[in-house]
Amino acid sequence: MLKVTIIGASGYSGAELAKLISKHPEFTLAHCFVSEQSVDKHKLISDLYPEYSGLLDIELQPLNEQAFSLIEQTSDYVCLCTDHKVSVELAPVFLQMGKRVFDLSGGYRLSSNDDYETYYGFSHPHPDWLAQAQYGLAEWYGDAITSAQLIAVAGCYPTAALNALKPLQQAGLLTEQPVIINAVSGVTGAGRKANVATHFCEVSLAPYGLFTHRHTPEIEKYLEHPVLFTPHLGNFKRGILETIYVTLKPEVTSTQVNAAYQVLADEPLIRLKGSQLPSIKAIENQPFVDIGWQQKGQQLIVVVAIDNLLKGAAGQAVQCMNLVAGLNHYQGLGVTA
Amino acid sequence: MLKVTIIGASGYSGAELAKLISKHPEFTLAHCFVSEQSVDKHKLISDLYPEYSGLLDIELQPLNEQAFSLIEQTSDYVCLCTDHKVSVELAPVFLQMGKRVFDLSGGYRLSSNDDYETYYGFSHPHPDWLAQAQYGLAEWYGDAITSAQLIAVAGCYPTAALNALKPLQQAGLLTEQPVIINAVSGVTGAGRKANVATHFCEVSLAPYGLFTHRHTPEIEKYLEHPVLFTPHLGNFKRGILETIYVTLKPEVTSTQVNAAYQVLADEPLIRLKGSQLPSIKAIENQPFVDIGWQQKGQQLIVVVAIDNLLKGAAGQAVQCMNLVAGLNHYQGLGVTA
Amino acid sequence: MLKVTIIGASGYSGAELAKLISKHPEFTLAHCFVSEQSVDKHKLISDLYPEYSGLLDIELQPLNEQAFSLIEQTSDYVCLCTDHKVSVELAPVFLQMGKRVFDLSGGYRLSSNDDYETYYGFSHPHPDWLAQAQYGLAEWYGDAITSAQLIAVAGCYPTAALNALKPLQQAGLLTEQPVIINAVSGVTGAGRKANVATHFCEVSLAPYGLFTHRHTPEIEKYLEHPVLFTPHLGNFKRGILETIYVTLKPEVTSTQVNAAYQVLADEPLIRLKGSQLPSIKAIENQPFVDIGWQQKGQQLIVVVAIDNLLKGAAGQAVQCMNLVAGLNHYQGLGVTA
Amino acid sequence: MLKVTIIGASGYSGAELAKLISKHPEFTLAHCFVSEQSVDKHKLISDLYPEYSGLLDIELQPLNEQAFSLIEQTSDYVCLCTDHKVSVELAPVFLQMGKRVFDLSGGYRLSSNDDYETYYGFSHPHPDWLAQAQYGLAEWYGDAITSAQLIAVAGCYPTAALNALKPLQQAGLLTEQPVIINAVSGVTGAGRKANVATHFCEVSLAPYGLFTHRHTPEIEKYLEHPVLFTPHLGNFKRGILETIYVTLKPEVTSTQVNAAYQVLADEPLIRLKGSQLPSIKAIENQPFVDIGWQQKGQQLIVVVAIDNLLKGAAGQAVQCMNLVAGLNHYQGLGVTA
Repeated sequence: MLKVTIIGASGYSGAELAKLISKHPEFTLAHCFVSEQSVDKHKLISDLYPEYSGLLDIELQPLNEQAFSLIEQTSDYVCLCTDHKVSVELAPVFLQMGKRVFDLSGGYRLSSNDDYETYYGFSHPHPDWLAQAQYGLAEWYGDAITSAQLIAVAGCYPTAALNALKPLQQAGLLTEQPVIINAVSGVTGAGRKANVATHFCEVSLAPYGLFTHRHTPEIEKYLEHPVLFTPHLGNFKRGILETIYVTLKPEVTSTQVNAAYQVLADEPLIRLKGSQLPSIKAIENQPFVDIGWQQKGQQLIVVVAIDNLLKGAAGQAVQCMNLVAGLNHYQGLGVTA
Repeated sequence: MLKVTIIGASGYSGAELAKLISKHPEFTLAHCFVSEQSVDKHKLISDLYPEYSGLLDIELQPLNEQAFSLIEQTSDYVCLCTDHKVSVELAPVFLQMGKRVFDLSGGYRLSSNDDYETYYGFSHPHPDWLAQAQYGLAEWYGDAITSAQLIAVAGCYPTAALNALKPLQQAGLLTEQPVIINAVSGVTGAGRKANVATHFCEVSLAPYGLFTHRHTPEIEKYLEHPVLFTPHLGNFKRGILETIYVTLKPEVTSTQVNAAYQVLADEPLIRLKGSQLPSIKAIENQPFVDIGWQQKGQQLIVVVAIDNLLKGAAGQAVQCMNLVAGLNHYQGLGVTA
Repeated sequence: MLKVTIIGASGYSGAELAKLISKHPEFTLAHCFVSEQSVDKHKLISDLYPEYSGLLDIELQPLNEQAFSLIEQTSDYVCLCTDHKVSVELAPVFLQMGKRVFDLSGGYRLSSNDDYETYYGFSHPHPDWLAQAQYGLAEWYGDAITSAQLIAVAGCYPTAALNALKPLQQAGLLTEQPVIINAVSGVTGAGRKANVATHFCEVSLAPYGLFTHRHTPEIEKYLEHPVLFTPHLGNFKRGILETIYVTLKPEVTSTQVNAAYQVLADEPLIRLKGSQLPSIKAIENQPFVDIGWQQKGQQLIVVVAIDNLLKGAAGQAVQCMNLVAGLNHYQGLGVTA
Repeated sequence: MLKVTIIGASGYSGAELAKLISKHPEFTLAHCFVSEQSVDKHKLISDLYPEYSGLLDIELQPLNEQAFSLIEQTSDYVCLCTDHKVSVELAPVFLQMGKRVFDLSGGYRLSSNDDYETYYGFSHPHPDWLAQAQYGLAEWYGDAITSAQLIAVAGCYPTAALNALKPLQQAGLLTEQPVIINAVSGVTGAGRKANVATHFCEVSLAPYGLFTHRHTPEIEKYLEHPVLFTPHLGNFKRGILETIYVTLKPEVTSTQVNAAYQVLADEPLIRLKGSQLPSIKAIENQPFVDIGWQQKGQQLIVVVAIDNLLKGAAGQAVQCMNLVAGLNHYQGLGVTA
């Protein structure tokens, strides 16, 4: 059994990952940490998430001095479910211990320091490691992930967008026009921290981050195509739905579009729905990416949905760990090939 | 006091309209009808909507033979909150009585019979009246509405889209590319009829009607510009949010965009938010259209929100009745100019 | 026009009260204040509540030194929508200026200092004013409210419970057994402050405050009968529903129960539903108390619902102000007698 | 592998059961049926529940003539997820084939025909089988279930109430007063059929079925104690929360109450929370019963929560099947002892 430690296990992604690891046939949960300042230190995950009572009664240890030597001795893999500002500093520490590191933040996803300055507002402190980081989008970069030491697990919105669009891009069906991605995320995507914006009475469907969201350069980098990405907060807990507007090259037929998506046909975690359209309900608590599409002339609308905490975070991280461990990438996620 | 009769008063729009009329300083509610087959006949509106108990204890009379002569004798205005198949047949009956008719369905909104065949699946039975019908979008066609006998009250999605886009179109800022309208509507938009699709446990954010929705030709007709309109059902009760992707002509400045919207600056029911973005919460139970926009180069994103039952149905109908009655169009809607 | 100042106008009750005052035919909004420490100072109410844009663009002034002399000069009535710890200290300041003070907190509702020590955890600093405070439950203490200088506006849960139970108690139908009150409140009842407990993803139906809630002594004091009061948080925004289990004296008939409720029959804000049962939906955004009941032998179940921000807070405060101003108590609340 | 057939697999409980069977290590899904009249016949479960796409692509066969011989040849266990009127007639057919039958309806739960006449409005057509039916509440009647041919799987509300109250009743701690059970159920409890009452815009917290609900005699029979049971519909999808008001005999201590609950301490599907209180969130999609309690003198409040589709229906049915199959009753439900 490979031993996995999670840093930042009190948040929604961290707790979801703890649950997946605890059920995984080949992994075991070594330790769960929160920051030393956290009010949740020494609590159990099941104190914060009573649904996991009896299932995940694991202590949230403070990440203090001793924690690092403990991790060094006991862990094979380290998962960072921390803010990108924390992740960029923690990752090198564990990498230098020789650990495989899976960073669920955006701290190592972009290659250019310019993009970090523009979209994240800081100059990246570890350009050497940044250069070595492998983007963790399991269905697309499986071989590279297998041998990487630092995996920058793909972001939630990009996971949906890239699985929906890379087949079209690779098949050469796109014109040069930017692809328009209208995305709506559930509130878990905003994190568990107390905030008026996520107050029960304040949440309602609304756009945010126009033109400036950090997932724009991430999608563009791995799609190799310009996008206009517009996220919204929706009044539901889990899930992302993206309605994507694509201008196809003239004369592209529905047969060509369907053929392009065949590149994903054998992927156990991708559900190609053809002209049937995904919904949030169909993807909640599911490890899949659902993709449907309809075409009229050069206009193609692709609708894609994922659970932001599973395929958009913890599930994707497990896929990456599976690859590093030499397992089938979909293992431990409740599906059979 | 002008006497108003509502046909189809048991549905969400009809009941909302009954509430507005009952509070209006210049109108009074003559009668409320439902079809003779309805299980709701002889019930009170407040039996179906207990929130209106004590406020709207008005009988839903069956629309039988006697009903028509009753309406003839007692009503100045007739509002049709019925399905378009019913409205197309009922409107001429009341028009021949000399009544002013306000049809909240799509039965008289399009001018071309071809569009009815394509989008509504029938050949319009009354092309003569269709030719005389005036589209009821109050801020834009006030003069024509004033003198019309048959008003085809604007649809919910088009009301939002047209108020957001006509300023740009009139200012000549649009390129020839279709405008992309990504729209999400609350569940009241799907009507009150029992249906698995509107079951509490089945509703979740999902697109529908791609390329084929009846509001596409309605928007295109009154915008005089092609659109790609994609509606979604959202998991909330009231409200429509549209995120609209516009390609501006090269070199169009933000000053020009702002100037274009000044055409609506004095409208009491339009809230121009500038770069602030609308939300569903801010428009629920409000008579307004909220419009916000942000620009990056040639890309302009306009976000518009309305309450689908107010500005998108009953509120718009009241505006049209006000115009016909020679009142300020916003009267009885809770605002002062 | 009487001039009303609101302290604590950024919270849910305060903003609701500002809205009611601004629409009231006899009152005008003098000033709105927040604490000097508040991040919301100098914002508009409509910045926090964009639904009120154009309707309530009123500045939230900081309650600093100058504020007090400003209030002294400009205001007839002062409404405290502040925490009880703040209210207990502010009320005497304004009372000494000769203002009529309406405190929406629990700071002046109980008469015994023992109860304050037990349920609020402090020794009341102003027992003199406490002795003079008049409980503000409009339908029951109208005469006394009219002449009081300090009105302790009734709490949300007690408003529902007392209107449902006082008719039975006054008619002498209750046995000595404690009445069991199972109550569920919407999340606005927990306030607008950022808090993990009110995070969109954390809210779900759950009980709290068993045996110890501060509204227990408030209900018992004004009912003059013991109760077992159990509040729950529900996953909705507005409204309180209480299901109340009463043991009637032997041989009490349904005629006697119905007769007892006749004491409220002429009250414009009380809707007696008989055997029909209230719901949250029917009371949302309504100024009413809905009361229904069913009986089987000695067991009587009374179900009562209010909107916690209207009849349970701001609406009740307006009723009290109306009484003090010599108006009909229900004025400005959207109903006619 | 034991072969299980489900009749009525299109509803919420039936589909949930199909999912559990399909994942169970010792059971396999033989066939899924719907009535011959159903619009869903020949569809896949995953057509109705797209979340199960790729996981449960199983045809809903019509229950016609041939179906019965097919079931006779292929199935070990037959589960009836049908209305009680259908179940009472179907059960004997399969019992005469020698099958083990698990009826999830109320058709065989009560022993007295009088109760069926009072609460279900019919005279039971098969009193012989009724006499042989074993109540399927797994933690309490394990031995009897093991050897029964017809298991009347416990109802959702009674499952919660009985697990919360039988420990107290068996320990002799209750006075003769009726126990008051205030219960709230999610909307899945009302079934998947289209109905205005379950329309997204109509659902809100409200009581129903006062004094007359069918689960009253079911609880009283197996508790051997009178109850006053009041169900409510809540605005959430899954889960039941019951707040139970118990009058303890004088002098009963908290130690005695705690000791009484020890009878359930080793049960893997019961989570005794002591003074911590259950919530809907903590039980959604979980196979458990959560029980918490607090006491003040003779007043004991017990709060219990279950997922109505799991422990309250499909999970309980699997427990019963496990017992009949000689397995640990909690097998296949995601927990380890």
